[in-house]
Amino acid sequence: MTELAAVKSALRTQAVETPSWAYGNSGTRFKVFAQAGVPRDPWEKLADAAKVHEFTGVAPTVALHIPWDKVEDYGKLAKHAEEHGVKLGAINSNTFQDDDYKLGSICHPDAAVRRKAIGHLLECVDIMDATGSTDLKLWFADGTNYPGQDDIRERQDRLAEGLAEVYQRLGEGQRMLLEYKFFEPAFYATDVPDWGTAYAHCLKLGEKAQVVVDTGHHAPGTNIEFIVATLLREGKLGGFDFNSRFYADDDLMVGAADPFQLFRIMYEVVRGGGFGPDVAFMLDQCHNIEAKIPAIIRSVMNVQEATAKALLVDRSALDAAQRAGDVLEANAVIMDAYNTDVRPLLASLREDMDLDPDPIAAYRRSGWAQKIAEERVGGQQAGWGA
Amino acid sequence: MTELAAVKSALRTQAVETPSWAYGNSGTRFKVFAQAGVPRDPWEKLADAAKVHEFTGVAPTVALHIPWDKVEDYGKLAKHAEEHGVKLGAINSNTFQDDDYKLGSICHPDAAVRRKAIGHLLECVDIMDATGSTDLKLWFADGTNYPGQDDIRERQDRLAEGLAEVYQRLGEGQRMLLEYKFFEPAFYATDVPDWGTAYAHCLKLGEKAQVVVDTGHHAPGTNIEFIVATLLREGKLGGFDFNSRFYADDDLMVGAADPFQLFRIMYEVVRGGGFGPDVAFMLDQCHNIEAKIPAIIRSVMNVQEATAKALLVDRSALDAAQRAGDVLEANAVIMDAYNTDVRPLLASLREDMDLDPDPIAAYRRSGWAQKIAEERVGGQQAGWGA
Amino acid sequence: MTELAAVKSALRTQAVETPSWAYGNSGTRFKVFAQAGVPRDPWEKLADAAKVHEFTGVAPTVALHIPWDKVEDYGKLAKHAEEHGVKLGAINSNTFQDDDYKLGSICHPDAAVRRKAIGHLLECVDIMDATGSTDLKLWFADGTNYPGQDDIRERQDRLAEGLAEVYQRLGEGQRMLLEYKFFEPAFYATDVPDWGTAYAHCLKLGEKAQVVVDTGHHAPGTNIEFIVATLLREGKLGGFDFNSRFYADDDLMVGAADPFQLFRIMYEVVRGGGFGPDVAFMLDQCHNIEAKIPAIIRSVMNVQEATAKALLVDRSALDAAQRAGDVLEANAVIMDAYNTDVRPLLASLREDMDLDPDPIAAYRRSGWAQKIAEERVGGQQAGWGA
Amino acid sequence: MTELAAVKSALRTQAVETPSWAYGNSGTRFKVFAQAGVPRDPWEKLADAAKVHEFTGVAPTVALHIPWDKVEDYGKLAKHAEEHGVKLGAINSNTFQDDDYKLGSICHPDAAVRRKAIGHLLECVDIMDATGSTDLKLWFADGTNYPGQDDIRERQDRLAEGLAEVYQRLGEGQRMLLEYKFFEPAFYATDVPDWGTAYAHCLKLGEKAQVVVDTGHHAPGTNIEFIVATLLREGKLGGFDFNSRFYADDDLMVGAADPFQLFRIMYEVVRGGGFGPDVAFMLDQCHNIEAKIPAIIRSVMNVQEATAKALLVDRSALDAAQRAGDVLEANAVIMDAYNTDVRPLLASLREDMDLDPDPIAAYRRSGWAQKIAEERVGGQQAGWGA
Repeated sequence: MTELAAVKSALRTQAVETPSWAYGNSGTRFKVFAQAGVPRDPWEKLADAAKVHEFTGVAPTVALHIPWDKVEDYGKLAKHAEEHGVKLGAINSNTFQDDDYKLGSICHPDAAVRRKAIGHLLECVDIMDATGSTDLKLWFADGTNYPGQDDIRERQDRLAEGLAEVYQRLGEGQRMLLEYKFFEPAFYATDVPDWGTAYAHCLKLGEKAQVVVDTGHHAPGTNIEFIVATLLREGKLGGFDFNSRFYADDDLMVGAADPFQLFRIMYEVVRGGGFGPDVAFMLDQCHNIEAKIPAIIRSVMNVQEATAKALLVDRSALDAAQRAGDVLEANAVIMDAYNTDVRPLLASLREDMDLDPDPIAAYRRSGWAQKIAEERVGGQQAGWGA
Repeated sequence: MTELAAVKSALRTQAVETPSWAYGNSGTRFKVFAQAGVPRDPWEKLADAAKVHEFTGVAPTVALHIPWDKVEDYGKLAKHAEEHGVKLGAINSNTFQDDDYKLGSICHPDAAVRRKAIGHLLECVDIMDATGSTDLKLWFADGTNYPGQDDIRERQDRLAEGLAEVYQRLGEGQRMLLEYKFFEPAFYATDVPDWGTAYAHCLKLGEKAQVVVDTGHHAPGTNIEFIVATLLREGKLGGFDFNSRFYADDDLMVGAADPFQLFRIMYEVVRGGGFGPDVAFMLDQCHNIEAKIPAIIRSVMNVQEATAKALLVDRSALDAAQRAGDVLEANAVIMDAYNTDVRPLLASLREDMDLDPDPIAAYRRSGWAQKIAEERVGGQQAGWGA
Repeated sequence: MTELAAVKSALRTQAVETPSWAYGNSGTRFKVFAQAGVPRDPWEKLADAAKVHEFTGVAPTVALHIPWDKVEDYGKLAKHAEEHGVKLGAINSNTFQDDDYKLGSICHPDAAVRRKAIGHLLECVDIMDATGSTDLKLWFADGTNYPGQDDIRERQDRLAEGLAEVYQRLGEGQRMLLEYKFFEPAFYATDVPDWGTAYAHCLKLGEKAQVVVDTGHHAPGTNIEFIVATLLREGKLGGFDFNSRFYADDDLMVGAADPFQLFRIMYEVVRGGGFGPDVAFMLDQCHNIEAKIPAIIRSVMNVQEATAKALLVDRSALDAAQRAGDVLEANAVIMDAYNTDVRPLLASLREDMDLDPDPIAAYRRSGWAQKIAEERVGGQQAGWGA
Repeated sequence: MTELAAVKSALRTQAVETPSWAYGNSGTRFKVFAQAGVPRDPWEKLADAAKVHEFTGVAPTVALHIPWDKVEDYGKLAKHAEEHGVKLGAINSNTFQDDDYKLGSICHPDAAVRRKAIGHLLECVDIMDATGSTDLKLWFADGTNYPGQDDIRERQDRLAEGLAEVYQRLGEGQRMLLEYKFFEPAFYATDVPDWGTAYAHCLKLGEKAQVVVDTGHHAPGTNIEFIVATLLREGKLGGFDFNSRFYADDDLMVGAADPFQLFRIMYEVVRGGGFGPDVAFMLDQCHNIEAKIPAIIRSVMNVQEATAKALLVDRSALDAAQRAGDVLEANAVIMDAYNTDVRPLLASLREDMDLDPDPIAAYRRSGWAQKIAEERVGGQQAGWGA
């Protein structure tokens, strides 16, 4: 197999999970702009997600968010998904939208609130059992807004205790992915603010606990690919929540703000042996002002392009330059791959996969956008609150 | 008059404007936690604001936000305020919550949307005429989320054109305060992102246009007191929107995150001749998880304490050390004032003003919180959306 | 002329000025690593700079730094440059390396130090007269490390006074380029910390005073292309000091850290009419660990590549998408140009210019690196201190 | 014992270690400004450090930096220290100033350079044996400036291997303190960039390996007290390098930039049981423009003041407010302690300790500054290079 064939072969195995909530409305604290055709329920979200997979060929699973995607019969939902050509993916918990959670969830000073939050997490594992999902993705909005508001250390104790209980509940083949976030909605101290904290907890929990890297959840200037390389080296990288940002957790389309960073991240994934089924590649974005389905198609393509470039790095030339201490040449090897226009390669891959070489154009031609705008009238559009 | 008497005398003249919207509910994109007793309309907001003035003695005016505080008869509203012991202050425009504003307001690519936005701004001046407000405070959420989304420069042209039309409408004794903001809700390019942009526009508009410094609207690490000193030197500082932040535009209580910074800002205000009626000292905060009225009382007190410390700086000792190039001594003079506990001084000032020396305790004792929690049942609580 | 021919034609006119000091040793406060073959004097620096132009064809001028490049006879230096195929460019002043400047130069509290600094600046204009340079580039390290250390506002007064005196001295065809910098070496308040401050001073000085944008001199997250667009709109963009950074003022090779940002900047330059002789495109980098000449060649090529992509943007398609409010399509137009591999185009341009299509390879083959390493033995290598 | 007596008693036990290098010259990459009276050798540095202890009573030990403080007979140096009333403290290694270290030290691609670096670290343990120091403080400047320059992950392997060898060499009662740093002098990827990386290595090494928190080594906005609380909870906080910063690693006097942050850090230390001999409280600052000895005295006093305020927090009132979820009250308890002017308390403590209540004034009166300026003439002043 030629090198290019090997790259194409690898790209063919790529799987990017799209999040059900990205198909619904989202916004900022200032305004949520509703869009025509937005799904009203999980069934419609899955139909949209299926379109993304139909045109890209590499988005076979859909993450659910509980309770936003709560249904009576998850087996039926899973079947619905499969009928549309996709599968259900990670289960995402939500412990930030009930009034009880004003001061936190599993870190809350009140044991009753913690109990409620843990109950929700356990329920999420029940749902995993029902859907066959293997990943429980945990993001906690927990934190404090003011110095002194609560005891930082005790909150860690509560966190550890809550996580341990949920960890015990995990069945075979199930794992817990713990996400960290620099800030927001907590504005003074977030309870899982960085990869170190997530890592320390996962280490104590055991093998089934791993860290999720959301690319928008870091302090300004943080070298994210270093974290990726380190977590892979530690065997603790569970997956990604991809998106991009210029400022804070902007949740823009992945690759939109700093495509070179995305490439560097994917290079460390490839180099560190993370390009495979053990690491979950998920999107977690907010399409506040742009059309949602094509934005997600574009995002999937951006991940593909970055991956293709990462796979094209001439590893032996790079290794030689690195060992020789040739700073400029080693950097040039990396840049050569990055500067390559991989769009023809990906177009060719799509043709091999019996897909349209231009997924965006194909989606536009499909009439889906018009169809859902016309049909999905009335009812309550999905959003973060429902 | 002794020095301390002069400080007290100056503090007695201080006026901090509180914003009507801070009495309503607010939150993050993740959740708005409702609080008991929150006002349902501008009348109730003014009643709450009057409590802040009643207990602090230095919060005599209340800023309105249009359309959130729209009423049929502004004369009646002004009278209502006065009956409660306060006055109406600045009029704040809102060009970010209509669906039309998804891609901007006065910078929008579509002239019809720009026309609508300008119409709203002109209406705000009408309201100023009716209320006797002198300040039109303009904050634009305008910007773009993605490179290429719109033409950065043309948006400046549209901004200049729109501002000019509104500026022309200002009557005698009225002015326009232009606010800048680093980012949010726009995540790529904000149309008025920094003081330089606001300054450049105000300069061209004329004397009635001045810059507002919101203390939470800067890039990480920005030296805000430098901007304050510079704008005062240029005669272009119109006022402040006070709040504090650890990360982005967190909108925490002013003085809560970095009280030393607040002191440095107030020192430059005092030193630059800005402590007087020409500079508006306004709060602009979100009390997402804390009780609103006592949080605003605390914020007013924090501004007072920072001001007191700024007034206590031994200016002649400072000047001598600065001229001598004595870095440590000059810094020590500043720190000496900052490290002083001014709470006894302010307690004494309040007693001079026939106020309780402890405004928070007095408010708690007053029973107002219980009263409004009991009485304000039913209806729609005020929030950013209404 | 086809579109591609027009792009090539424009690229052919491009001129990137390289800085004499980038050929000498540089480092961090921790260590300056010396490199073999580094020039010992301005004559050797110019010989190196000539190599960069020889292989790239677009680096025809060299900026000098006084006193580092002080010589007895500038006419002779200019002639030496021309004999090597390059010309002398901007004159850069230095008011930060004498012991007198510990607390500042033209903002220093002591009038005698200010006088000395102004004297140096006037001397730089004398040198411009002698070399025929048109640009006086001013960067002031002035600032304070501690709150209270000096009076922020008075320092602005001193700055204005000093600049005015130097401005008066400028002859016909000469201009003053004022640089701003977020921080370093001052760690509390820098006297020209942002574009707004530089702009405000330049505005008062007059038409010959313009702002220089150093791409590494901003707060984290700052949208630099916005500043570029704004300064061009105001007619106040004098030029660039190109370099790149991941953190602070890292002074890495331009385009190395965020090539997409460089592209966006160049797009605003092209779109705003700044691609021409009125805006100076200069490098200002530190090659602490990499070989200097090839690093500068690479940097020049990176600017070329970003410019080529900026020129390739389909302006009419972009305009149509922007006017239609099609966020995704407008962004796609920009990304299409960015994702294009322009290296073949530039290779072809070089062949048209009778240059080797691969400047780095050609330089390596030339033997210059070996030659200077062998010949430049003994003496004092050039660095920031000499 | 009354509460105040308990606070004074605790403060009396406080020990702040001052660094030998802070008595020498330092600066930025732009300039090192020499100061009169600066020590020429370790013996003179210790004499200066003894003055800091003489006037503050809480700076009994002095950290050494190898090779800057290399002497033939460390026993003699230790005796010299004791004769002056101080003791030798932590040994700090230096693997960043030899030409060999251009691309790293124990992470260098070349095994020979790694061997040299490890050799130096082992030599430092030898010196610890000779001086009786218990702490080996390791800060590595290692990292890369450009993407691709070296293999991020392999560098971690090399780091782990090198640390393990040094760890094995530690004797009884000796420990290894591993410092992390966000960036500088490496500008792309630093090999120990954050607490998580340092923690992960220390965990594998064993009980004698602990993390050092340098307060200036974090990304913008990082909540340092959270890290302190977390490391204490994990039993992995070895000590502090205190200093302060407005921007990057500015190395200003501790408490000068954000005294409230220093207080919050000291509160977590006290609350987490870290106020005792197991955590080393060290300064690591650069007095680039201010007089060194009084700056260090001021810094020690700033740590004392922050500690005093932290000790004054009404823990039971805080606990009650936290458990009640009273955000404002809990914050008020913390702020009440912070706003207290503790200078009278510390003056009284000093009198109890037979010290002058005003250490700065006492130092100024002592004539030491004049004496060393007169006597220390000739020779090579100490600085980072020697």
